[in-house]
This record gives sequence, structure tokens and C-alpha cells, in this order.
Amino acid sequence: MKAKREGGGNPGAAVVLLSGGMDSAVAGAWARAEGYAILALTVDYGQRHRVELEAARRVAAALGCRDHVVVQVDLRRFGGSALTADIPVPTGRNPHEMTDIPVTYVPARNTVFLALALGWAETLGAEDLFIGVNFLDYSGYPDCRPEYIEAFERMANLATKAGVEGKSRFRIHTPLIRVTKAEIVRRAAELGVDLSLTWSCYVPGPDGRPCGACDSCILRAKGFAEAGIPDPLAR
Amino acid sequence: MKAKREGGGNPGAAVVLLSGGMDSAVAGAWARAEGYAILALTVDYGQRHRVELEAARRVAAALGCRDHVVVQVDLRRFGGSALTADIPVPTGRNPHEMTDIPVTYVPARNTVFLALALGWAETLGAEDLFIGVNFLDYSGYPDCRPEYIEAFERMANLATKAGVEGKSRFRIHTPLIRVTKAEIVRRAAELGVDLSLTWSCYVPGPDGRPCGACDSCILRAKGFAEAGIPDPLAR
Repeated sequence: MKAKREGGGNPGAAVVLLSGGMDSAVAGAWARAEGYAILALTVDYGQRHRVELEAARRVAAALGCRDHVVVQVDLRRFGGSALTADIPVPTGRNPHEMTDIPVTYVPARNTVFLALALGWAETLGAEDLFIGVNFLDYSGYPDCRPEYIEAFERMANLATKAGVEGKSRFRIHTPLIRVTKAEIVRRAAELGVDLSLTWSCYVPGPDGRPCGACDSCILRAKGFAEAGIPDPLAR
Repeated sequence: MKAKREGGGNPGAAVVLLSGGMDSAVAGAWARAEGYAILALTVDYGQRHRVELEAARRVAAALGCRDHVVVQVDLRRFGGSALTADIPVPTGRNPHEMTDIPVTYVPARNTVFLALALGWAETLGAEDLFIGVNFLDYSGYPDCRPEYIEAFERMANLATKAGVEGKSRFRIHTPLIRVTKAEIVRRAAELGVDLSLTWSCYVPGPDGRPCGACDSCILRAKGFAEAGIPDPLAR
């Protein structure tokens, strides 16, 4: 299903936020399956698990992206998160207990990411943005919820020259927002995404392997288990 | 008039976006006059007129900010603007003809700036953000309009842990949004802002002086002329 598109200087292209994790890899493959040429954007924000940046490069190459840009914004300058400051990452939590917003929440992270994606999209004349947020089996981050995404999209069309002049209508695509991690694993298989290229762990060990105990590892393991598919990264 | 404030870890503090220009300097002085402790945020986005970063440091010092952070985000990686790419800056335009959105517009710039300010504010437990956008005598940038600011504020309160948990209610203050450049010059005088510390020109000459011909110089000159006050930076 090739999405129809009008106006803009880069018809058929979409900016895809690619973290190196499973969800954004599947969101990228989804965009590709819909017929978009992919302009991948990765943000090096000083994250503790910098190894995910290498995963993002592998995923971008596998997706056959038209371009892949890695932008640096050092959010450690602000801190406030276990991913950007000297705060321990929680381990061993039960997924059913992940109802609070954890200390791995990075203040305004998706807003910074989407703002950068919007700027690049407008420059390129693209009007479709993909972000792999999901709302089920997630870590409780507020900037993964549908009402947030809708508010960002509305703001984006008021923020931009292209939006105001009516040349473009920016759309934030969230193909995974209402699916479980198990469904994401299954869709990866359907879409031909090699999940061995992806990275999820927040605190990789000295051996360079996933810790298996942080929320991100636990949610990943839950997804593979429920999908009945072995994780190629599992110990 | 000391604004009342509840909750948060940094009551009485406001994040002020400080570019080095007149408008943000007056917005900062306004925040100070309202009783806020100022946390100044400047973004080094690879702007052509990097000299404004030094002006931001001078202004932050003069305002007596509690902290001043300069964050780097290289928007030249995206380009698309005369301020971030090899595109000539228009000169000699009549202010009355500045009705289009000019090539100095930087795609999604204020969205990136406000996203960063929001992240810092949430980390600090501050809930007030100041930005010196203005809607009259401006360059036609869409992200300086009231409807954009309102949409950003709404999004910000859905994006953040503090907003969602009801601990904070982020407010985007735009004290200059409906005033003329002449009023900004007059308010600078009233608030004790030394405008000789600020910088406006997009294309400073080799002698390090303002060009006097870009939109930013022309709007500045118009403001001083209409206020009947000499510009300390004028040739």
C-alpha cells in the first residue's frame, strides 16, 4: 500500500527515528513496506548504552535507507535520568509492576527527537515521520502515548513554514503504538527484520552482552517468549 | 509581581532561552523582574552568526543567572536555511515587505529550542519557560506565533512525567509576543537591560560589526528609531 502524497520536495520519503532497538527497526521496516524511501535519524544524546548507536547503523544499512544521519545532542548536560546521569538503572523488575514512570525516563527525549526529525523532514520536503513508540508492554514513558503524539503532530503543523503555508501536512506515524512486544517480534519476522542487528539493553556488561535484568531486557525477553520465537541475542 | 508556584524541585526558577539578541535579553530581564531565578539556555546550532553566542554569555552574566548552559546541536547537518547552509542572507529589504517567510527561517528551530528547555526544566523541577518570540515587527517565522506557542505548551504537558503526574504545569511565557520592536527597546531601558551587550546581525562583517542590511539589523534599527533611542551598536 503505497501512501499517496502531494507537494513537498521529497515525495515518498519518510524520516524514521532509529534508536538501534527493536521497535524502531520494525517501524522502519513498516515504513519501507508502505513504500516510503527511508531517511533514518539517530540521536546520540549521551546515552549510557552507546552501543545502540552501532546497532542503529547496522539496522539502517539493512533497511536500505536513502540516508542515515546521526545527530549529537548531549542530554547529559541536563541529566535527570538513569540513562544520562549517574543514577542506577533498576534491575529485576516484574513487567507487571512497571506501572510507574521509571528513572530511565529521559525528560522530553521524544520531544527533542521528534523536533529534530521535524526540522530535517521540512528541509527535505518530506512530510511523514515514523517513531517506534509503543504503549503496551512499555516502560511507562509519557512521551510514548497516543495523546502526546497527537499533540506533537498538531504543534508541528503550526511550527513550520511547510505546515503554515499548507504545502505539507506533517504526519507522525506510530505503527506500533497499540501493539504488544510479542506482536512486534512477530511483525519483525513478517517484515524481514533481522532482530540480531538490534540492541535493547541499558547496561551492557563488560563482555558486551545484554544484562538480561534491566527493564528493556525484561520487556524484550517477554516479547520473544510470548511470540514463541528465540531471541538471537539471548545468552 | 512574584508569580506563585507549587510543587517541583526548583520553585521560583525559570528556564530562559537566551540567543544573545535583544528580544531574549528583555525576556530574561522580564522573568527576573517577575521574581524568577534565571536558568539560561543557549543553543549553539551552528548558526552563521556565531558571535551571538558570546553575546548570550555577556547577557547571562549581566542578568545574574543562576546557571547558563550552552548546548550544541548542529542543525547544519540538516541545512535548509540561510543561517545553517550556504544560502545568501537577504539584505536591504523594506520592513513593510517582510510578509513572506524568509530564507533565514530555520526549520523547527524554536521547537528544538523549546524541547531542550523543557527537558532541562523538568530535570530541574522548574515549570516556567521564557522565550523572547515576537509576532509584530518580526521576520515572519511561523514558530513565533501565539497559536504555535499554545500548541507547544499543550504538548509539553502531555510529554513529561511532571506534567502527566500533575506535579508541574509547564507554562511557556512569551512576554514580548505582541509588542513592537520599539516597545522592546523601551522595555529594555525600563528593565535596565544594556542592549550594547546584545547582538542581532546575521552576517557580521570582517570588522566584526553589524552589516546593517540584513532583516535582523533592519528590524533592530527600526525598533531603536521608533523608540527614539540610539542603538549603542550602531555605526
